[in-house]
Amino acid sequence: MSEHWCELAWLGGERAEPGVLISVQGDRITSVERGVASAPAGAGRHNGLTIPGLSNAHSHAFQRALRGRTHAGRGDFWTWRDQMYAAASMLDPDNYLALARATFAEMALAGITTVGEFHYVHHGPAGVPYEDPNAMGEAVLEAATQAGVRITLLETCYLHGGIGAPPDEAQQRFSDGTAETWVERVSSLSSPANVNTSPNTGMPPAADPTAKFAAAAGPTAKVGAAIHSVRAVDPASAATVSAWAAEHGLPLHAHVSEQPAENAACLAEYGMTPSALLGQAGALGERFTAIHATHLTESDFGLLGGGSVCLCPTTERDLADGIGPVSRLAGAGAGLCLGTDSNALIDILEEARGVELDERLSTGIRGNSRPADLLRAATDGGCASLGWDDAGRIEAGALADLVTLGFDRVGLAGTTAGHAVESAVFAAGAADVRDVMVGGRVIVRDRVHLEIDVAAELSAAIGAVIR
Amino acid sequence: MSEHWCELAWLGGERAEPGVLISVQGDRITSVERGVASAPAGAGRHNGLTIPGLSNAHSHAFQRALRGRTHAGRGDFWTWRDQMYAAASMLDPDNYLALARATFAEMALAGITTVGEFHYVHHGPAGVPYEDPNAMGEAVLEAATQAGVRITLLETCYLHGGIGAPPDEAQQRFSDGTAETWVERVSSLSSPANVNTSPNTGMPPAADPTAKFAAAAGPTAKVGAAIHSVRAVDPASAATVSAWAAEHGLPLHAHVSEQPAENAACLAEYGMTPSALLGQAGALGERFTAIHATHLTESDFGLLGGGSVCLCPTTERDLADGIGPVSRLAGAGAGLCLGTDSNALIDILEEARGVELDERLSTGIRGNSRPADLLRAATDGGCASLGWDDAGRIEAGALADLVTLGFDRVGLAGTTAGHAVESAVFAAGAADVRDVMVGGRVIVRDRVHLEIDVAAELSAAIGAVIR
Repeated sequence: MSEHWCELAWLGGERAEPGVLISVQGDRITSVERGVASAPAGAGRHNGLTIPGLSNAHSHAFQRALRGRTHAGRGDFWTWRDQMYAAASMLDPDNYLALARATFAEMALAGITTVGEFHYVHHGPAGVPYEDPNAMGEAVLEAATQAGVRITLLETCYLHGGIGAPPDEAQQRFSDGTAETWVERVSSLSSPANVNTSPNTGMPPAADPTAKFAAAAGPTAKVGAAIHSVRAVDPASAATVSAWAAEHGLPLHAHVSEQPAENAACLAEYGMTPSALLGQAGALGERFTAIHATHLTESDFGLLGGGSVCLCPTTERDLADGIGPVSRLAGAGAGLCLGTDSNALIDILEEARGVELDERLSTGIRGNSRPADLLRAATDGGCASLGWDDAGRIEAGALADLVTLGFDRVGLAGTTAGHAVESAVFAAGAADVRDVMVGGRVIVRDRVHLEIDVAAELSAAIGAVIR
Repeated sequence: MSEHWCELAWLGGERAEPGVLISVQGDRITSVERGVASAPAGAGRHNGLTIPGLSNAHSHAFQRALRGRTHAGRGDFWTWRDQMYAAASMLDPDNYLALARATFAEMALAGITTVGEFHYVHHGPAGVPYEDPNAMGEAVLEAATQAGVRITLLETCYLHGGIGAPPDEAQQRFSDGTAETWVERVSSLSSPANVNTSPNTGMPPAADPTAKFAAAAGPTAKVGAAIHSVRAVDPASAATVSAWAAEHGLPLHAHVSEQPAENAACLAEYGMTPSALLGQAGALGERFTAIHATHLTESDFGLLGGGSVCLCPTTERDLADGIGPVSRLAGAGAGLCLGTDSNALIDILEEARGVELDERLSTGIRGNSRPADLLRAATDGGCASLGWDDAGRIEAGALADLVTLGFDRVGLAGTTAGHAVESAVFAAGAADVRDVMVGGRVIVRDRVHLEIDVAAELSAAIGAVIR
């Protein structure tokens, strides 16, 4: 057992609490005591503000290689996609493991303790499966385990190059051909990640490394499902994926209405919006997360309100997608979560304030979302979306995922208890993250990843996939 | 003389140049040599990307104390202003020196080598002048000198509480009563800043510390003029300030059309836009900088196109001001520059990308501004606006203000020569700034300010003015 005394901790309310003692046994919080004036002997001391680990509900790890390389030109989402496909075409299981490991380690430095990897680069060049058809997904799971970050691998079904169009050359690597083949492949998923190799977690290794996909749900890894979009998955196939996710009680994600062109194509072909189509396919509900949900029609709010919505403001700004109707979605009951998406930036706190700041630009009104609600989206909102219902909160019984923001850097210097939550959302960033714990195990201390030289590995891994 | 070898340097073009040797004598660059493969013996070595020092053309230093404290509530610009006035009411020359010194030092850490301080808290409580009527402005000049940052003190005329309204209690501290009294006060300005106290600059101290305002133009300090806004300065007074600035050839700044309510009041009272009013007052022209310029009418573009426009995207988002018509202003010939304004964030690179990213949200199109143009706005654009025509570029004869962005942190890991300019604008931030030189003097090395414990001083200084 270990004890952690926090100068300030956010326990879910509007304000931070001073003097909080958190006890941890194995990978779980066993007690949370308020009003403890000073650190007891033997307790770790966390100055600054301690919050639950941040959750990144929507990532494409390989796109980290594109940072700084796709922002200059003219064009729109669709021209950006061509550049993104070129990078995807360079991946193989070995270089993807290295790139994803370094990217997830960058996330750890930014305080991200849970990532949802929306994974669709499944097969080799020209769509030929690897000998192990899950080699790419297993590389992603392994990468997260090595980086020390909790992951939900969102196994993404991607079949078509557009409504009624076959996959193009780049997209062949994404496609399983049919939804049934996708089910077959995903059902055979097993992974080294089902054995948590950390000596510190106190968790036993899984008994059988050849077990079926459920075994990939080790102490820090889960599997979920994803429908790439209504462009890439037809209604019958979307129904197959949805049924499989429902059968296993797994999270189900989909890109929804990111671009007006997607809505127009869906309406022209099917006579309904993407949300309505996904509703008919049985995708929607409390396990469902709509990614982006930028361009909605009136009837979509009720449909999406029963699940989660993942906003990715820095990517949505970069790709000129537009400003989503966040307050209306929240009002309809949708749970909010956040994603770094293209990983051009990796900073969930910037995503959190981006939600509010962009809505200010579209409405001319401040204070649409409260700071504590934005911080909730950045923590347990993402965990709920990713199937980690017992993470993202500082409370007895929850997984011991903790992040401390230091007030020792200039960004948060001058922060006081009364404004610490507001400061975390509106004035802090990845550089303020000082210490990070995942499942009781410290992975970042004093802004240094304890096992990975992150910048050096990023540089090498990016060099291997980008000319 | 000293030599500085840069792995990559941005010399103003679309791309960075590899292997650049910069020679410095006193406070100036004496030569710039390209294609130097490795660092000569005795030369300083700057790995990463070296750019001209960043310029912050619009700052209210004291508002740093409000960071994290004004973002949560509902309301708009005007409710925010009430909180800001409460902080202003706490200032005196001593605590303002400490707060501005720490804030300017935070700017130094962020690579800002030139700041334009839009200064309007001139007098004591109830508007009673200090014994030295320029005590507050001199504190600001001294603060910048101590922090090692080049400054243009924009002495701001602020007379009214709104069109036809007297200043309220908070605003009494800003008002000189009449424009003539403003001229008299500003003309008597002298400052310790006219003596650059650094032993490293090689510049002689000014001969006469009691000299008139021109003497405040020491090696790292200049004085300029500002008309707060058409709300706070009537047309005749605006003409008086404009004439004084013209007589002395000084920069002249004004807040212009930040809010629709300002436009409406100006139109109702004077039958013209704020830009047109300033044009009639003789304010506009190449020495003029319009701050914000968010809500313009068709005829304003031609009027503002002959000068500079300063965008402050992070503040404009925070205050729900809206998205300014940047591309149209640039097309009309306006020089662009950038400001941190409220200092809720201090990161000129984030301001630079904010210009483009916000325009993407309003237009649905990417690539409205080119990365090199945004970096120009962040460097020589601001210097030109602030009267430092010989700063903001890496070239022989220019002031030796240099900033090196390290690729040794995760943010820029993987950056290559071909994309370094794009990466600096779209993927870098204050935390990536490693080394900073102002006038040949190193003020930041390895991300540490060499003379000031910035976070500790910020914390103490903010505690002194905020309850």
